[in-house]
Amino acid sequence: MGGEEGGDGLKLIGQYGSAFVTRVKLALSLKGLSYEYVEEDLRNKSALLLSSNPVHKAVPVLIHRGKPICESQVIVQYIDEAFAGIGPPLLPADPYERSVARFWAAFIEDKLVSPWDRVFRAKTEDEREEAMKQMLAAVDALEGALKEGRPRPFFGGDSVGYVDVVLGGAVSYAKGHDALFGSELIDAAKTPLLAAWMERFCELDAAKAVLQDVDRVVQYGKMLIAKNAAATRQA
Amino acid sequence: MGGEEGGDGLKLIGQYGSAFVTRVKLALSLKGLSYEYVEEDLRNKSALLLSSNPVHKAVPVLIHRGKPICESQVIVQYIDEAFAGIGPPLLPADPYERSVARFWAAFIEDKLVSPWDRVFRAKTEDEREEAMKQMLAAVDALEGALKEGRPRPFFGGDSVGYVDVVLGGAVSYAKGHDALFGSELIDAAKTPLLAAWMERFCELDAAKAVLQDVDRVVQYGKMLIAKNAAATRQA
Repeated sequence: MGGEEGGDGLKLIGQYGSAFVTRVKLALSLKGLSYEYVEEDLRNKSALLLSSNPVHKAVPVLIHRGKPICESQVIVQYIDEAFAGIGPPLLPADPYERSVARFWAAFIEDKLVSPWDRVFRAKTEDEREEAMKQMLAAVDALEGALKEGRPRPFFGGDSVGYVDVVLGGAVSYAKGHDALFGSELIDAAKTPLLAAWMERFCELDAAKAVLQDVDRVVQYGKMLIAKNAAATRQA
Repeated sequence: MGGEEGGDGLKLIGQYGSAFVTRVKLALSLKGLSYEYVEEDLRNKSALLLSSNPVHKAVPVLIHRGKPICESQVIVQYIDEAFAGIGPPLLPADPYERSVARFWAAFIEDKLVSPWDRVFRAKTEDEREEAMKQMLAAVDALEGALKEGRPRPFFGGDSVGYVDVVLGGAVSYAKGHDALFGSELIDAAKTPLLAAWMERFCELDAAKAVLQDVDRVVQYGKMLIAKNAAATRQA
């Protein structure tokens, strides 16, 4: 422990623009864990990244006591389990409630983040519109999830939990949506509970400390859209 | 408990052709749990399915003491946690080993099952070939996963675990691959460890009891391909 990997024996390989990396930063921040952070240049991948994640060659990778853990949702669950006694738990204790949290986390990945990625990489305006429609349907479903049962400030209940972290990784992009695409993704008039959730989440000290700067992700997003448009023209 | 839902208070809504449903059957069988099984007609979805899984309206759904759990990987983890004292554990106890199991389960979903689905639904032969290529790359990676570390009979180690169940749901389709597409998916000459794993897995009593009949999934697969081809011609 200690030394290079930070006080808790942790090193995170990340990239500033990645919503997946932000999830891991959020989990570490909520648990109050210290770690060494290594910013990766994805155009020129490091030997550390390639040897730590030979299957996907992607960030985030969390290295704990020399062992690499890959894939953001897997990493967040690992942090919750390996540091179970430290900081607040992210997943609830009850098996049924755990299953509900995992259901919504998977939903966010498949139905929101996946079309969101396609919005950036779309080759035609039709493709972008179709993906955008899917995202908005997912946003509506998440509003419904917050409406279920008793009113509560977070998906995790009275405090943030696993689903909040998984969704929270994307809030800077949600806030930059209008600047990128000319319309709000999370609109207080249409999805008031989700809009209130986003404000509340961003006010948490643990979130403030690690959430990406909105202007910077807007710049990053514009670059990604321009790069994909150029690749499409060349193809 | 008891009564309609079976001795362990469990009801499974499934569909015979589904590899996802088979995962849940495998988990229940390995744990030695009894349950009521309801076969769903997906062309005419039941009120029970629609009310139990309003978000995805898909099988499998496991109902335990009146509460629905959806999504096969979520259900398998639920079974492992809710019946922790019953039968063998599916996920290991060590947080790092749990993360490795979750990593490979997610890999199977994204890199093997997702292109596999596209192989059936492909609109052109090019699309089918591309998806097939991705599947074969995933199969190679899984062979690599079995090769890592000490030789072991199952992904879970000396006994079956979470990854075995997630992959195991698809073995009848793997066995019917040649009959459906004219080439083996898991070829003993190319991926000997995975081929040996498949034989070993199919010999387990708990698997034998629930694995789909290969001829029947071949018929189901042919129907699916024909239906998609007809839809493509009409479009």
